[in-house]
Amino acid sequence: MRILLDAMGGDNAPGAIVKGAVMAAAKTEDQIILVGPKTEVYDLLCEECPDGIPGNIMIVGANEVIGNDESPVRAIKTKKESTIVTALNILKDGFADAFVSAGSTGALLAGGLLICGRIKGIERPAICSLYPTLGGKVCLLVDAGANAECKPRNLCEFGIMGSVYMEKVLGREDPAVALANIGAEAEKGTQLTKKAYELLSESGVNFTGNIEARDIPAGACDVIVADGFTGNIILKLTEGMFGQMVGLMKQKLPKEMLGALASRTDYSEYGGAPILGITRPVIKMHGSSGPKAVMNAVLKASEFAKQNVVGLIEAELK
Amino acid sequence: MRILLDAMGGDNAPGAIVKGAVMAAAKTEDQIILVGPKTEVYDLLCEECPDGIPGNIMIVGANEVIGNDESPVRAIKTKKESTIVTALNILKDGFADAFVSAGSTGALLAGGLLICGRIKGIERPAICSLYPTLGGKVCLLVDAGANAECKPRNLCEFGIMGSVYMEKVLGREDPAVALANIGAEAEKGTQLTKKAYELLSESGVNFTGNIEARDIPAGACDVIVADGFTGNIILKLTEGMFGQMVGLMKQKLPKEMLGALASRTDYSEYGGAPILGITRPVIKMHGSSGPKAVMNAVLKASEFAKQNVVGLIEAELK
Repeated sequence: MRILLDAMGGDNAPGAIVKGAVMAAAKTEDQIILVGPKTEVYDLLCEECPDGIPGNIMIVGANEVIGNDESPVRAIKTKKESTIVTALNILKDGFADAFVSAGSTGALLAGGLLICGRIKGIERPAICSLYPTLGGKVCLLVDAGANAECKPRNLCEFGIMGSVYMEKVLGREDPAVALANIGAEAEKGTQLTKKAYELLSESGVNFTGNIEARDIPAGACDVIVADGFTGNIILKLTEGMFGQMVGLMKQKLPKEMLGALASRTDYSEYGGAPILGITRPVIKMHGSSGPKAVMNAVLKASEFAKQNVVGLIEAELK
Repeated sequence: MRILLDAMGGDNAPGAIVKGAVMAAAKTEDQIILVGPKTEVYDLLCEECPDGIPGNIMIVGANEVIGNDESPVRAIKTKKESTIVTALNILKDGFADAFVSAGSTGALLAGGLLICGRIKGIERPAICSLYPTLGGKVCLLVDAGANAECKPRNLCEFGIMGSVYMEKVLGREDPAVALANIGAEAEKGTQLTKKAYELLSESGVNFTGNIEARDIPAGACDVIVADGFTGNIILKLTEGMFGQMVGLMKQKLPKEMLGALASRTDYSEYGGAPILGITRPVIKMHGSSGPKAVMNAVLKASEFAKQNVVGLIEAELK
């Protein structure tokens, strides 16, 4: 496998990305292709590897960076030399198998759509988020914000895609797929959730019904299906609650306790979140990813490609 | 003022309700009217007040109770002797000024609508929730679940009603009203939130724009406007996060710290949440309310009536 890695994405790039690439290179025989300004990346690699750069790391030159504040579609169309556009073109042409970036989520989604294209049968690709529950289990939240407005079939497709990903890449057996809703019964919620409930029931995934928001932090399922508006509210409110509570307690809480809390909610273990619904494996890492998160994302991206998740999603839709 | 109090609503009824009534009676000259089975309530009052029942407490007989699991509309139509129907009829006829209950939220809403009626100009009444933020300030969340599907004008009305309530009853000066959304800019979110943003901007309330879910726990506004689906997700996810975090930390956290956390999120101080949009003041207490919460709810209900919140909402709509 060849895994493209955006050397310039995220708050800690390029340092943390290069470090993560070196860590990953020691754990896999896959080829890791750093995409970024050649000299800068090469110098960092030399620093990081005084005894020689690992044979399975290479560099592809790309001199532009797409910022988080840029219009994604315009940036994809105009910044042809950017790390994201360069990597997605290589991916589309089949010269690599997966792409990992901590850069602009919007640009990754827009680029994935414009350059690689949608999976046949999927109307709307989704940005996922790995939701590390306080119960200790990680869930895949689909959609985390790409599609503020959804049709029932979109939600059903989110469930199918999420189920395949969690089974194949995170090794969850027969993943429990639940629909975020305001009551447990099938007839609760909106027209959208009622119809999506029906479609998910008939979809072939292990649909466990509605999940109330109260039960989400305990980790009551493997895949949480939601429209992007609701998913984004869930994700951001969780972050906000967590930040406030840790802030409140920091003064008095014993250090080992804060450590235990942090490890329960440590995104870096899970290797980033997939963008599902496009024809190539793309993983978006958290903007603040450090070397360990980068390493894990590269390893997960390799599984994403090896397990043929895209092909299996296509097959499920038939 | 005469405040009706449902003696049989909630998990701790009638004991905690009667205790709370006695506590409130000592703090106000308002008349407190306990609605419930006469003999049972009277016996509890005698126990609670060995030196004599306060002169401003009276009892109105009502022998039925509406359960949380009953269909609200059917229960209102068939259980004419229930505490909720009895109290709402007295309220509608003008023999009392406000009603406080820890009973079925659905029945209070349905009864409020069917017996008292909507405020002219309000299309959809809302169930509010007092959201005690970790930042230390309480916000009013409107709607917390009555209306899963909303039109833009409903959200605008929620903002107007919430603003009047927070100013008049909780004494918040020029309350900051914000719209729950997935981005700060006016054009973010769904068709619903975009249009609601416009209407709220022109409504005359102190509209501070969109609030992202991440900023809700810090208490960044006084009134959070949301459709009932989103509001319910916010409310339940907060409860779930809080429960999980406290559970995780209970073993190791110093007792005074848990106490500090609990006091930040203590609903009992705020006296229950109003049902807004009906022609009479009705306050819904948390089902688990204890005596102190009951006392505070009675005092707030009195303000709700004295400040003529219903009349002011009507005036704002003109």
